Amino acid sequence: MEVEDLRQHISRSFNADIESLHNSVLTMGGLVEEQLDRAIEALTQRDSALGLQVAHDDVKINRMEVSIDEDCSRILATRAPAAGDLRLIVAIIKAITDLERIGDEAEKIGRLAARLAGVERPTTNYRELRNLARHVKQMIQGTLDAFARLDANGALAVVKEDEVVDEDYESICRQAITFMMEDPRTISRGMDSMWLARSLERIGDHCKNICEYVIYMVHGKDIRYTSVEAIEAEVARAGEAAEAAS
Amino acid sequence: MEVEDLRQHISRSFNADIESLHNSVLTMGGLVEEQLDRAIEALTQRDSALGLQVAHDDVKINRMEVSIDEDCSRILATRAPAAGDLRLIVAIIKAITDLERIGDEAEKIGRLAARLAGVERPTTNYRELRNLARHVKQMIQGTLDAFARLDANGALAVVKEDEVVDEDYESICRQAITFMMEDPRTISRGMDSMWLARSLERIGDHCKNICEYVIYMVHGKDIRYTSVEAIEAEVARAGEAAEAAS
Repeated sequence: MEVEDLRQHISRSFNADIESLHNSVLTMGGLVEEQLDRAIEALTQRDSALGLQVAHDDVKINRMEVSIDEDCSRILATRAPAAGDLRLIVAIIKAITDLERIGDEAEKIGRLAARLAGVERPTTNYRELRNLARHVKQMIQGTLDAFARLDANGALAVVKEDEVVDEDYESICRQAITFMMEDPRTISRGMDSMWLARSLERIGDHCKNICEYVIYMVHGKDIRYTSVEAIEAEVARAGEAAEAAS
Repeated sequence: MEVEDLRQHISRSFNADIESLHNSVLTMGGLVEEQLDRAIEALTQRDSALGLQVAHDDVKINRMEVSIDEDCSRILATRAPAAGDLRLIVAIIKAITDLERIGDEAEKIGRLAARLAGVERPTTNYRELRNLARHVKQMIQGTLDAFARLDANGALAVVKEDEVVDEDYESICRQAITFMMEDPRTISRGMDSMWLARSLERIGDHCKNICEYVIYMVHGKDIRYTSVEAIEAEVARAGEAAEAAS
């Protein structure tokens, strides 16, 4: 075998490793999204069995995280990747922790849905929560798309969405507290709504975290703790530079 | 320079890299612990300025995370560490994310303390919260100790402590809800207590996460999502094997 052939072979099998890793993360993301869907369905349909099933199925997500983590360590140890590949792997190590914690929040919603199936629903059947859940679900989809296409602009859009989700969350809490003050009989229900909203808000946070890793992967710049405006400017600048170079 | 000299030189400078990384994590941990102390002091002393200072100082922790992250990537790229060293670096990449989020919770407590400085304190002056905070602080110290000494048994003790913290947290919530039901005028205060307790409980979770990475570093076994009993058996087994081998 010629050296050039060997090099190509190494590079091909390395690319296959990276691609398989990338696909595993997307599969895990799809499962997480499905868990959230089913948890919200269990809540709004008062389906206690489904809620418990969601809680139970969280182990699948946990197992995927451990398995992807092991793949990352193996690739780091055997391939010693550099530059962009290294950034991808570090970003994946971080991203799957956030995906796994989105799964934990879905598990919490599932458990709470199972308990709430036996009690009277609020007259609105959690309208605000359903809206928030829809919004958060869009964030998950945007996050997975941005990750799949290594799209820094898409990731940036999700980062910006998180501010809206935070506002919606605060508005749900304020409303719940107002109701509780007016009618203490609603305290217990108000608290449950707030816990549910809190879980959804935290899912938004995790999406934002993952999108920041995507931007880091693409541009190699750590944008955590930078304002949205500064990130926008940075992404625009990098985009122009790429265009000028092509 | 002889090959052996060169090898020793590489190994020495590599060890210096690893040691410096290890120390940076401990420094970051010390800062996080201090932030929690000051946040709780701001709360119990009704010191609004201190609360805001704590919130403001969170940027220092964020900056440390970014800097340690960069060091890890640099070491991965230039040293291609294997086995134990690789595990250490992967564990550090994960652990600093949790440390940073403990910092975020301290920031939240600081902000809330600043706001609460202007309102009447509960007659107990947050006794239950202070107890919970003390407990959580012990967990942080235990976590940093276990990390400093790469002590899997110490880490395991912290993992077990988290169950107690979770119970204390739930008891504070139950109590707050009972008060709110009895006297709706306490709703607002009850909610604040629950947010504070929630932040402390989450700090406990992050300590538990870090300790699980410590056990992984030491034994190279991923113990996440394993019951405390199974982890105990595993640590004991590994300890016996190490003794038999020495």
